[in-house]
Amino acid sequence: MQYVHGGDYHKNKGMLDFSANINPLGMPKGCMKEAMRGVLESVHYPDYEGRKLLHALTQSEGVDSHAIILGNGAAELIYAICYAIFPQKALVAVPCFQEYEIALHNVGCQVEHYCLKREMEYQLDEDFLLAITKEIDLVFLCNPNNPTGKLIEKELLTQIVTRCQECNTYLVIDECFLPFVIEEENYSMKAALENNPYLFILRAFTKIYAMPGLRLGYFISLNETMRTKIRSCMQPWNTSIPAQYAGLKALKDQEFIARTRAFIEKERTYLEKRLRLPVIDHVFKGQANFIFFEASKDLYRHLQDKQIIIRDCSNFENLSKGFYRIAILMHKENETLIRAIEEATEYGYEKELLNNGGKE
Amino acid sequence: MQYVHGGDYHKNKGMLDFSANINPLGMPKGCMKEAMRGVLESVHYPDYEGRKLLHALTQSEGVDSHAIILGNGAAELIYAICYAIFPQKALVAVPCFQEYEIALHNVGCQVEHYCLKREMEYQLDEDFLLAITKEIDLVFLCNPNNPTGKLIEKELLTQIVTRCQECNTYLVIDECFLPFVIEEENYSMKAALENNPYLFILRAFTKIYAMPGLRLGYFISLNETMRTKIRSCMQPWNTSIPAQYAGLKALKDQEFIARTRAFIEKERTYLEKRLRLPVIDHVFKGQANFIFFEASKDLYRHLQDKQIIIRDCSNFENLSKGFYRIAILMHKENETLIRAIEEATEYGYEKELLNNGGKE
Repeated sequence: MQYVHGGDYHKNKGMLDFSANINPLGMPKGCMKEAMRGVLESVHYPDYEGRKLLHALTQSEGVDSHAIILGNGAAELIYAICYAIFPQKALVAVPCFQEYEIALHNVGCQVEHYCLKREMEYQLDEDFLLAITKEIDLVFLCNPNNPTGKLIEKELLTQIVTRCQECNTYLVIDECFLPFVIEEENYSMKAALENNPYLFILRAFTKIYAMPGLRLGYFISLNETMRTKIRSCMQPWNTSIPAQYAGLKALKDQEFIARTRAFIEKERTYLEKRLRLPVIDHVFKGQANFIFFEASKDLYRHLQDKQIIIRDCSNFENLSKGFYRIAILMHKENETLIRAIEEATEYGYEKELLNNGGKE
Repeated sequence: MQYVHGGDYHKNKGMLDFSANINPLGMPKGCMKEAMRGVLESVHYPDYEGRKLLHALTQSEGVDSHAIILGNGAAELIYAICYAIFPQKALVAVPCFQEYEIALHNVGCQVEHYCLKREMEYQLDEDFLLAITKEIDLVFLCNPNNPTGKLIEKELLTQIVTRCQECNTYLVIDECFLPFVIEEENYSMKAALENNPYLFILRAFTKIYAMPGLRLGYFISLNETMRTKIRSCMQPWNTSIPAQYAGLKALKDQEFIARTRAFIEKERTYLEKRLRLPVIDHVFKGQANFIFFEASKDLYRHLQDKQIIIRDCSNFENLSKGFYRIAILMHKENETLIRAIEEATEYGYEKELLNNGGKE
């Protein structure tokens, strides 16, 4: 399978990009300023212990600074976790963020797929517990899940955490999109870290603070041995000065998070309503900063013709042609997208599809 | 052994730092400006194929763009190379940059030390060829070597390259400091890449363009299989936008390299001459942007008291207390260092050392 990533802005320059799930409010100005100050200081090596940033994270996350390991984006940590655990067998609930599986395959791990059910709207269900066995060394879970936007209920999550611990199975809960969720504290599993050496919480500045180009993520774990092992799988200077400085500033701007959540909620409601179009077969109810839906099969190509890029999800495991994901952008951009999709209907796009029905 | 890195600027803020081997002329203004423009664009993901930068590198390095893999600093590539090759036994000529050994140990590799000889001024010699056997999977060589500053003669290097190929032994030549050397083309092994699947040339923007805080390095290899394998050991978005933009700009400023070389040459001559002091036992003749010497054992502590940090090399393999490395900085700073060392002699520092002679 060829993996195609969303958000290839550099290839699609000048196009309206709904394919990357980034906070549409953009990077806070203060973070940009600090990142620029970081550029001026970049004649020095970064602090390989990330002392200031870790100290600030300690306060915001309510854990000891030693419990946090910084990464060059959460993606680097996914690879490092796989190297440190070196699992023989891992479990992912598909569809999900593809980098888990790529990183697992990279260490020669066999990956079991738990297929989320279309009829349950791809919501993670209790059957998943049965898939966690002593043979599974590592489980990756994304909450809310990418690309479906589905939150996992706290009760089920708690059972999964317990089940993993019983099976001596490491569990990485990727909460990179959780800060977009109102009442995220009701869904985060941070509180379960205590006395659980198998649990890792993965987080990033990337999406919520709109700084994917700077690369900054982290994980939290109270397992000192594994933490040290994972850290040693990465070079000492893995996070840049601009990233560290921007991250430090970001943590001081909690109003930004509140504003983001309110904005996303409003625009998601708007988009969900406006997406009730003939060309859209189904919109999945999600809670993230993106929307997952099923539509006529050539919507990607049709929108591309209109200089709009959406995420064609057909290369995700357990999905096929006709599944798409759009990031929630600013209101005007969202309107533009809706209009472009409407045009697809108005101008006989469906008819065209019907005529070419035999092609696939 | 506890590894202590040079250049911990963040811990030693406000001190004069001779411990990090960075171009004293600083990051070119144009690069800083581009890195800052990169910050503004960092609401997008970096180009994970690094297309523009690779295109520019192709021109400057005279190789196909596919032959180059970018890294989050050369350090990330050292780790990735170790993961991809997964050597059982490796060879390093010590003392050398410690990250090779750390990265090798990280993959459980047994590391053989070829001990460079004090009486030969730690210059790599022909006996090294005998240490390369079919049992050695990977060799790391640094040219010029860190911390000694010694260049490896082209003739010997050519024999090493041939010997490694004969033994099916991968060879990484770290040329990160080579751009500081006048007539670097006479020492670079880039020309030997052709028809040699075992050779990797490692390079970085870090030192020569004084951008360690941004993190940007690369390696060149004509071995497509290994290149692909190494790339897949790293996340897709490993180099940040500020780093990519700064790197692209740097390649357009070749006058900067010429100016750097002339400056380093002049200041090295100055420092070598001024370092003929009673407290300095021996200055090793080197060609890099740093100077390696042997001195009274407590010089590090003495200079630290004067707010000056030098690299205490006692934790390098094959070295002991009394070996130091200083980066060549700007003339005024170099003068300050010399004065501080002179004071060590004048104010009875030697006497103090003699009195405390029994302490170690």
